[in-house]
Amino acid sequence: MARVSQEHLDARRRQILAGAARCFARNGFHGTSMQDVLKEVGLSAGAVYRYFAGKDDLIAAIADEAFQYIRHAFAEAAEISPPPTPDVLLGRVVRGVFTGQVYGLERRTCAALIVQVWAESMRNERLAKTLGEGYAGMRAGWAQLVEAYRAAGLLRADVPADDVARTMIATAQGFIAQEALFGEVEPEALENGLRGLMSIDAQRIS
Amino acid sequence: MARVSQEHLDARRRQILAGAARCFARNGFHGTSMQDVLKEVGLSAGAVYRYFAGKDDLIAAIADEAFQYIRHAFAEAAEISPPPTPDVLLGRVVRGVFTGQVYGLERRTCAALIVQVWAESMRNERLAKTLGEGYAGMRAGWAQLVEAYRAAGLLRADVPADDVARTMIATAQGFIAQEALFGEVEPEALENGLRGLMSIDAQRIS
Repeated sequence: MARVSQEHLDARRRQILAGAARCFARNGFHGTSMQDVLKEVGLSAGAVYRYFAGKDDLIAAIADEAFQYIRHAFAEAAEISPPPTPDVLLGRVVRGVFTGQVYGLERRTCAALIVQVWAESMRNERLAKTLGEGYAGMRAGWAQLVEAYRAAGLLRADVPADDVARTMIATAQGFIAQEALFGEVEPEALENGLRGLMSIDAQRIS
Repeated sequence: MARVSQEHLDARRRQILAGAARCFARNGFHGTSMQDVLKEVGLSAGAVYRYFAGKDDLIAAIADEAFQYIRHAFAEAAEISPPPTPDVLLGRVVRGVFTGQVYGLERRTCAALIVQVWAESMRNERLAKTLGEGYAGMRAGWAQLVEAYRAAGLLRADVPADDVARTMIATAQGFIAQEALFGEVEPEALENGLRGLMSIDAQRIS
């Protein structure tokens, strides 16, 4: 019997996750059965259950991979010195998420999947844990970056770095929600919008 | 037979919507039956169906009322001249949503309900239409405000007002998502975060 290579196993695993992601994005987590996933990926139950015990395993793996992608995109962008401003960095991360880098999904389908994952995590402890860890990692990364802005004298000193990190992540989450809900949200709009916000002179108003 | 006053009808309608909102927030739209809603509000099927034909009617009415509330909160804040900066205005809107003004729900429950509505709207055309209209209204309102900042010379002229409006709405949506997912998101964090972003001097970096 021929031995199955690791690459083959990885490719198969990825094929299953991509199919499951398409199903969840299209019909929601609750509207998708394991039968639907088998049909979508064109594999037998035996072939799929070898990798994933059920829907919970599938959605946790999808969320985990999405976070890995975002962490990678972020780490790459943050390596540049001095770090790019929030508009450039967030534009890059959102553009990456939207250009089908996650399971080759179309932009709106991908955004819809993320919102499905958020909704499902409220009733699924395991998924909530995955999201909680991923989010904590993102927050820490962004807070470091905010400290770098501050060290360079580019950001006022009297606001907690974590609050700025949270707000930056919120803009990305909001753009994902808008794309899921309405479609045709261009990452340029986020870049422009952040540039606009950064130009508001609060001192002159208050 | 005694005539039923309009106030009584309105109060009853509100009681039903509040109960349905609690059910949807707790168990999701798909995990809630009309039976669950009847039980939650303690009314007979006849009393409830007099107002709402089914779950679709309930969730559309809830989304519509939430938008009315946000429009009202926004209009009130925008009446002040000169208009408050985005940090103040968005802090006020998010604080309003979070302080149980919508059906007296607890903060995280309310945020969870909003994320459920987003997820459900992807498979429910009527709800998608309600959200689309509500969002278009918000965008137009915020874009007007951005024009007011610009007219006062507070905002750079080379970014579209709609992009800034979208980005401001995105921060609020992102904070709602974070509260739904993780809880304990203080509106002060959004205010501080926006103040931080507004202080970043893009010219000095790029």
